[in-house]
Amino acid sequence: MPRYKLTIEYDGTPFAGWQIQANGPSIQGELARAIEAFSGVCVVPRGAGRTDAGVHARGQVAHFDLERDFAPETVCGALNFHLRPAPIAVLNCEIVGDGFDARFSAKARHYLYRIVNRRARLALDRDRAWQVAVPLDAAAMQEAARHLIGRHDFTTFRSTQCQGKSPLRTLDKLEVARHGGEILIAACARSFLHNQVRSMAGSLKLVGEGKWRPDDMRSALEARDRAACGPVAPAFGLYFMKVDY
Amino acid sequence: MPRYKLTIEYDGTPFAGWQIQANGPSIQGELARAIEAFSGVCVVPRGAGRTDAGVHARGQVAHFDLERDFAPETVCGALNFHLRPAPIAVLNCEIVGDGFDARFSAKARHYLYRIVNRRARLALDRDRAWQVAVPLDAAAMQEAARHLIGRHDFTTFRSTQCQGKSPLRTLDKLEVARHGGEILIAACARSFLHNQVRSMAGSLKLVGEGKWRPDDMRSALEARDRAACGPVAPAFGLYFMKVDY
Repeated sequence: MPRYKLTIEYDGTPFAGWQIQANGPSIQGELARAIEAFSGVCVVPRGAGRTDAGVHARGQVAHFDLERDFAPETVCGALNFHLRPAPIAVLNCEIVGDGFDARFSAKARHYLYRIVNRRARLALDRDRAWQVAVPLDAAAMQEAARHLIGRHDFTTFRSTQCQGKSPLRTLDKLEVARHGGEILIAACARSFLHNQVRSMAGSLKLVGEGKWRPDDMRSALEARDRAACGPVAPAFGLYFMKVDY
Repeated sequence: MPRYKLTIEYDGTPFAGWQIQANGPSIQGELARAIEAFSGVCVVPRGAGRTDAGVHARGQVAHFDLERDFAPETVCGALNFHLRPAPIAVLNCEIVGDGFDARFSAKARHYLYRIVNRRARLALDRDRAWQVAVPLDAAAMQEAARHLIGRHDFTTFRSTQCQGKSPLRTLDKLEVARHGGEILIAACARSFLHNQVRSMAGSLKLVGEGKWRPDDMRSALEARDRAACGPVAPAFGLYFMKVDY
């Protein structure tokens, strides 16, 4: 019984999120529909991360099993055919061993948060980045970000809805860099809490506009209190980029 | 009577092109509507380049005159307010002298053509780039591009609808470079013929997939015959980036 591993890109805008749910279309649901359309089997793929409504992916990973042995290119082509017109594309398909699990085998997850720092609203990048009109100081944001690196109790940066058993996580990377009119925030960890990246991005924005000093990020972390977090950054600026196994 | 110079970004997808026309909404028409909405004056802005339906802009330039002296920031904010929900954003507004003409004062126009070179269709970049499934050789494309640099009769790379009086143009830059899965074609000239960049991009693609040798680009140019051109690349991959004055 072969296990198929998919690498997936999607525009999160029209979806209620990755996970199948009652209140709207989901990426997982569209994939399940496409798998059934080509194979005749009803199977729900398991993803590496449950992205929220509006969050995009350049490299989400999912796996599913089928009785039949298809060539990976056949699966890729058939899924892309049946996914139309949903804005979901299977970039790669490979056959992996039974031991592989998209969620539990993940060693590192990479996210990117995009801020376009300008007064004018976004024409070409609407729903693809967060437009922030106030000039942001990327160097101060980077200084603040350093306080979050390492193993910490991230209660401050965790949604009250988060179902994780522990608020402890190890943040391996949180880097802020300006590229012309854009500020990119790159984050990497074995796993993240619910809304963690958007909570950190929203707090970093407060540092960037001078409402928080870089050191205030440490105080916010140490408070271990959701009320100490800045306003959560909007979903449409977030990209699930890559999973390392 | 102050003259206002605008720098404009737009998503070309929903428009019949820059120019006001009978068969659909235009960027020029939306701008004229917004100018009238805030100033009460009916005035049509003149653009630096007439982009076709579907072509995007990161830095189109236009100018228009008003009797009244408004602060440039006021014009910028008011236009962006009245342009909603059209995907057009005024990035900058400044007051310029009477001698400035967005079209005739331009010293150089910069265009970018984006190819995403992969098998899967585009989920996040649909309508924003040309997806080409066949692997492209960017080095061969760059070699071919060199044959087009300089002052030439570009009849081969000119739409049969082109209204330019002469097919002679001086191409200052045509550079092809691969950035990961993307191939970017950057072009610069004082002015271009109608469909010139898309005609060159379409022919470069033939070189990239090995259907033309790099030298065939020179033969195509020397033919001075529209029939010698490769298939014109689609509009949605093209961006009008910048105008130098």
